[in-house]
Amino acid sequence: MTRYNRQLQGASSHSLGVPPWGHSDPTLSEHAPPSWIERLALRKLLVLLGNPDIQFVLWNGDKLPDTCTPQTRRLHIHDRHTLWRLALNPDLNFGDAFTRGTLEVEGDLVGFLEAIYRAAPAANRQSPLIKLLGEWRNRARPNSTADSPDNIHHHYNLGNDFFQLWLDEEMVYTCAYFPTSTSSLEQAQRAKMDHVCRKLRLQPGETVIEAGCGWGALARHMARHYGVTVRAFNLSHEQIRYAQDRAAAEGLDKQVEYIEDDYRNIAGRCDVFVSVGMLEHVGRANYQALGGIIDRCLEPNGRGLIHSIARDQPCPMNAWIEHRIFPGSYPPTLREMMEVFEPWGFSVLDVENLRLHYAKTLEHWLARFDARRDTVRERFDEDFVRAWRLYLAGSLAGFTTGWLQLFQIVFTRPGLNDIAWTRDHLYAKRT
Amino acid sequence: MTRYNRQLQGASSHSLGVPPWGHSDPTLSEHAPPSWIERLALRKLLVLLGNPDIQFVLWNGDKLPDTCTPQTRRLHIHDRHTLWRLALNPDLNFGDAFTRGTLEVEGDLVGFLEAIYRAAPAANRQSPLIKLLGEWRNRARPNSTADSPDNIHHHYNLGNDFFQLWLDEEMVYTCAYFPTSTSSLEQAQRAKMDHVCRKLRLQPGETVIEAGCGWGALARHMARHYGVTVRAFNLSHEQIRYAQDRAAAEGLDKQVEYIEDDYRNIAGRCDVFVSVGMLEHVGRANYQALGGIIDRCLEPNGRGLIHSIARDQPCPMNAWIEHRIFPGSYPPTLREMMEVFEPWGFSVLDVENLRLHYAKTLEHWLARFDARRDTVRERFDEDFVRAWRLYLAGSLAGFTTGWLQLFQIVFTRPGLNDIAWTRDHLYAKRT
Repeated sequence: MTRYNRQLQGASSHSLGVPPWGHSDPTLSEHAPPSWIERLALRKLLVLLGNPDIQFVLWNGDKLPDTCTPQTRRLHIHDRHTLWRLALNPDLNFGDAFTRGTLEVEGDLVGFLEAIYRAAPAANRQSPLIKLLGEWRNRARPNSTADSPDNIHHHYNLGNDFFQLWLDEEMVYTCAYFPTSTSSLEQAQRAKMDHVCRKLRLQPGETVIEAGCGWGALARHMARHYGVTVRAFNLSHEQIRYAQDRAAAEGLDKQVEYIEDDYRNIAGRCDVFVSVGMLEHVGRANYQALGGIIDRCLEPNGRGLIHSIARDQPCPMNAWIEHRIFPGSYPPTLREMMEVFEPWGFSVLDVENLRLHYAKTLEHWLARFDARRDTVRERFDEDFVRAWRLYLAGSLAGFTTGWLQLFQIVFTRPGLNDIAWTRDHLYAKRT
Repeated sequence: MTRYNRQLQGASSHSLGVPPWGHSDPTLSEHAPPSWIERLALRKLLVLLGNPDIQFVLWNGDKLPDTCTPQTRRLHIHDRHTLWRLALNPDLNFGDAFTRGTLEVEGDLVGFLEAIYRAAPAANRQSPLIKLLGEWRNRARPNSTADSPDNIHHHYNLGNDFFQLWLDEEMVYTCAYFPTSTSSLEQAQRAKMDHVCRKLRLQPGETVIEAGCGWGALARHMARHYGVTVRAFNLSHEQIRYAQDRAAAEGLDKQVEYIEDDYRNIAGRCDVFVSVGMLEHVGRANYQALGGIIDRCLEPNGRGLIHSIARDQPCPMNAWIEHRIFPGSYPPTLREMMEVFEPWGFSVLDVENLRLHYAKTLEHWLARFDARRDTVRERFDEDFVRAWRLYLAGSLAGFTTGWLQLFQIVFTRPGLNDIAWTRDHLYAKRT
């Protein structure tokens, strides 16, 4: 059994079980109709959620609210334990109950989650007390040098085989860049890597440090197509081994070195610093330190790019994602991201929001995952399939509704005048 | 005499005159050699400035430091009053003494100022006490609704004739966008207006509110070429009158309304909110309020653009510019600019740094100003000519050295999906 499965089973241990008053009426069996207090709890939950157009369908067939339209989305609650857990901590327990199958969404999962996100009050309009309580209850795990390996292994050591089932052939597990909305995922991941390389204006012979390299696709792409040498860091043993094997097989191991280490231990100098999809796992407390590492590494002509999931307004990561899928993760706002750059005087040249490109990327991943769900079920179990569908669909809904953003930020050493005159070169046709 | 001239004369009133100890030796006349304490003060000043490669040439011909290279820039100090003023408050008194002609830069003024800016320690490396003292001593003027008109009239009511001498034919007094570095100023200002309009994806029939419209060129451009209607606000009576006359002469007065009022009084709704070159005069305390005004005006499909001078790190505006040229001005960092957007949940789509384009714009302005300096001298006086040359050259040096940045920020209502798929459309050739 994987660590991941144990984690999900932990979620099933009913630590937030039926409260005392849930059983105050001894006649209430598992199948009895909902009590008035249970109906009240659901109505309060709807208000808390900003009154999305959804209807609860309870274990006995009762519906709440009574009326609905053809557009109303339905959520089936199969038992009263689940109702109470949902009412008490919806952020965390929606996902846990969905995983166990005691909650079911009728019809299109992405559409249901979009309805929830669109109705949710903006962070600045939530009751401060409820917000504070939620943040404390579902506080993120720390990201010290000691904690980070656990947080990262939790997700990435599920096995390369698993991710190969539904990622593109280069195993890129970050937002793609779709030249047109009908580009394939493979085209779009290559286009993303080119977009990043062009933004960085890589020159043959230059040195690159990559922080958080995943399965190493970007480092290989840079070496193969732009003639640079790359030192790429990652905490995941399985990913590093895969990246090393693949670089050797493709004859790129002279140009690319994959190093299994924390970004905090990066040493040496480079012309270019790049990090795609790591900042959201770094934790806000470490942004200034990350900037300090970039400052230590970067040559006087140095430039870099940070690519990260982000937010319009500060808000903790969804508790279920943070606890069950990506421990320690936090998507910052653009203002918060500046804490990496501003203390060290880096000069920001370009910020691009690729939110809809991440939605499109997730559409592809979810479709591929769904096509391989039988294989995933055999390897793990049905709970695992449901959890990962929820994670992919929830992320997709997050990007389509603007709950999540994706920023690519290009920066340089201050006062560097050897920069692109305009951004035309990013959009020029290549021969 | 204009208000501006009176302001400069105020600067000549020697409020920071010779300190008591400057006259401690009664034999020191105006023409006596510098005392040991005056030499020490200049050496300390050089250290404070980060040891730029400059040499002071004093009223009696003494040079400090003694040695120099062919690259060393020279600053002539014509009297000891000026030396003391410079040593005590260089930020403010360099400009005042330069204006009066008691300080002279030998050779290329821009090159001299670049040498100063390049040597200056980054804001985060200055001694906190010296920084604090400087900030307090040269604190900016407030920007309340009562103060803003004075601050704005100070600069813009010098007379349209004056600005016509050296601006482009459309009277655009903000950073241009040079498609190539050899484009003319006229081409570049038109290209800038098109760049802004494309970023905003203006559609015929849409409504635009412009905050801080200068002489109204962007509003006319939008109406003429993009078929929108614009309500454009500005505090300067002379600019508004010019803009109204020109719109009427060009048959655009049905589409463009110029309103002499503070941005805080903007009312009504719009599809697009745009502000080019106003935020640096708004004052940081008012950013959230400005965001609130945008939130009040913008339709649900709304989008906008803010264009402003900025900084890599927080630092007050140069005291002389703030006191003598642009009262109340403050160039924010990108993090600080987010205080306009984040509290209201606006979604940032695109940030572009056009620093080198502002340097190029200022090169054109300075060259045109120099070509017309006899006319300017006749209308004002030589002090005025020197002050404006310093202001233009200092701004140019600020942008070439990275002391100043220029950000264009595109934003929308949160979760708006009718946005450009990529930025290709900004760079596509037009028929």
